[in-house]
Amino acid sequence: MTTVGVLGAGQLGRMLALAGYPLGLRFRFLDPAADAPAGQLAEHLRAEPDHPDCLDAFCDGVSVVTYEFENVPVELARSIARRVPVYPPPAALEASQDRLTEKTLFRELGLEPAPFRPVDSRDDLARAAADLGYPCILKTRRLGYDGKGQHRLDGPDDLDPAWDSHGTVPLILEGFVRFQRELSILAVRGRAGEVACYPLVENHHGGGILRRTIAPAPDLNPGLQADAEDLARRVLERLDYVGVLAIEFFECDGRLIANEMAPRVHNSGHWSIEGAECGQFENHLRAVLGWPLGSVAVSRPCEMFNLIGVLPPLEPLLALPGVHLHLYGKAPRPGRKLGHVTTFGGSDAVRQLLAAGDASFRP
Amino acid sequence: MTTVGVLGAGQLGRMLALAGYPLGLRFRFLDPAADAPAGQLAEHLRAEPDHPDCLDAFCDGVSVVTYEFENVPVELARSIARRVPVYPPPAALEASQDRLTEKTLFRELGLEPAPFRPVDSRDDLARAAADLGYPCILKTRRLGYDGKGQHRLDGPDDLDPAWDSHGTVPLILEGFVRFQRELSILAVRGRAGEVACYPLVENHHGGGILRRTIAPAPDLNPGLQADAEDLARRVLERLDYVGVLAIEFFECDGRLIANEMAPRVHNSGHWSIEGAECGQFENHLRAVLGWPLGSVAVSRPCEMFNLIGVLPPLEPLLALPGVHLHLYGKAPRPGRKLGHVTTFGGSDAVRQLLAAGDASFRP
Repeated sequence: MTTVGVLGAGQLGRMLALAGYPLGLRFRFLDPAADAPAGQLAEHLRAEPDHPDCLDAFCDGVSVVTYEFENVPVELARSIARRVPVYPPPAALEASQDRLTEKTLFRELGLEPAPFRPVDSRDDLARAAADLGYPCILKTRRLGYDGKGQHRLDGPDDLDPAWDSHGTVPLILEGFVRFQRELSILAVRGRAGEVACYPLVENHHGGGILRRTIAPAPDLNPGLQADAEDLARRVLERLDYVGVLAIEFFECDGRLIANEMAPRVHNSGHWSIEGAECGQFENHLRAVLGWPLGSVAVSRPCEMFNLIGVLPPLEPLLALPGVHLHLYGKAPRPGRKLGHVTTFGGSDAVRQLLAAGDASFRP
Repeated sequence: MTTVGVLGAGQLGRMLALAGYPLGLRFRFLDPAADAPAGQLAEHLRAEPDHPDCLDAFCDGVSVVTYEFENVPVELARSIARRVPVYPPPAALEASQDRLTEKTLFRELGLEPAPFRPVDSRDDLARAAADLGYPCILKTRRLGYDGKGQHRLDGPDDLDPAWDSHGTVPLILEGFVRFQRELSILAVRGRAGEVACYPLVENHHGGGILRRTIAPAPDLNPGLQADAEDLARRVLERLDYVGVLAIEFFECDGRLIANEMAPRVHNSGHWSIEGAECGQFENHLRAVLGWPLGSVAVSRPCEMFNLIGVLPPLEPLLALPGVHLHLYGKAPRPGRKLGHVTTFGGSDAVRQLLAAGDASFRP
């Protein structure tokens, strides 16, 4: 019996387990949260991972360790990797945890990021803003997600307030990109180095949080898919990556600007559970276990809607044909990802139901 | 949070839970087996259900109770139904547990069964065999599954051995049906009486155990689908049924002979997990919870192969495109259902891999 250890027991871990049980796998999650989504359906060690006894219990008997959030401490991942294989490799965590390292890597590999400058002082900030022009975005280098830790600057008057709200941590200033749309690609690399890429998808955010994904991205210039795959492949190979990697892009006057990457399964890949031959969760498990990768072919185009903060009325939703509901077992709370819906056709009716609770779906 | 109680924690229960977690459900299983397939991924009360304390613990906080095997004692189902809704209704259990009751019901409702006679004595057996002619099949009225408890009689010399091996329990003698193929239909009825029917599928057995299902049944006379739906609807309505019901038929000179029914999700419906818009497990849950039924439309034709007794080599299997593996977390043992594979195209390659361990797949 193969047991997979997973750091973090949120919805991504839950969906990993749901994809892995049919493969005959067992799961052990490590997460301090009491009623974590994955803990409802698998072994769950409720503990902070920095306790040494806890790591013994976590590693005992697991074949491989993976993680479902990118802020896993790199030293923790390295110390686990001395006992059990850890995929994606800790180096990928390290590269993605710091926006400066990440963007520097992108630039080295030919994935053009938005222009950026490191900011470590008030003077740095003034110089960087003068270089990049306004508007520009001040971001924390670490621990940002769903738009948290970001501050838009529209002119010199914004320098002081931005600095005052962020100034104690390492920062990065990014030039503003006037993009036509946001795209992302999910790529998966196996232990033997084989790579497969899902199609580029189109993402819509509201309040900094992903709300909707259209898969594949409609009306795509075919050259962009080839570009994105090529770029993803370079990142995967440079990091000797194993597992699913997500890269977010801006589509900007017919080319791709790399925004950020996540060394894990990703919200913009949830459509693949029903919409691809082999979904991202199963493919991540196949990769980290050294099994053959599954087909990333699209079985049917679809749309994915996130359920954020409040749940829509479920019975009318379930009554719509072609709707696949995924709830994460979480109590409703503003801004919280409670679930998602994948729909094959009829997405207008889904949007109408969601609009009652989520303004971003209102016309 | 809605919790579903399930009697039995085998693979059918496991797949119910896997279909139900995305709907936000929780599960509690009752089964004395230590490492039961569903117990690996949900709350599992390891106890015999006839202990009164155990039933208290099982029923506490569950919204509805269902079951995954048809030999649940009817009195147990009735005693649970006094505390919590039980679906399918205990009357459906009762009707399906006794082949005589079942076939009598089929006949009343116009589903022609194979000719049959009840057998309670050696004299009954001789008379019944004289009536029905040879070959004929002596079966126990209760507790038969996967071909167990059956005895074929080819002539009067077989009467004594058949009687001696079965004579202490109520029996039924069935006339032999020379059929062209075995078909089955899965129908689902909601709490409000709405009915949906999956397409007829073609089943292949080996050693009395289902080995392969082709969905939908190829080259089907369209009238037979209408006949099967009509018959299923009559059974569902007569029993005031709620949930998924399976009915097995013989196709015999262009008409359907009803063989038996199972008041539960069914092995011949496993293809629907990937092959239908909404699979049988999700639809069973929607029905017993009083939620809208999902679409039973076929998304893509497919084949389902059971993995029986031994597992095929998994890596070559996973390397085939269009293959969906479902393992049940059981240790291999001859004749045991360990998992199944659903395949979209490429079924010859799957059969070749299975043939090494399972003679029924050899050419």
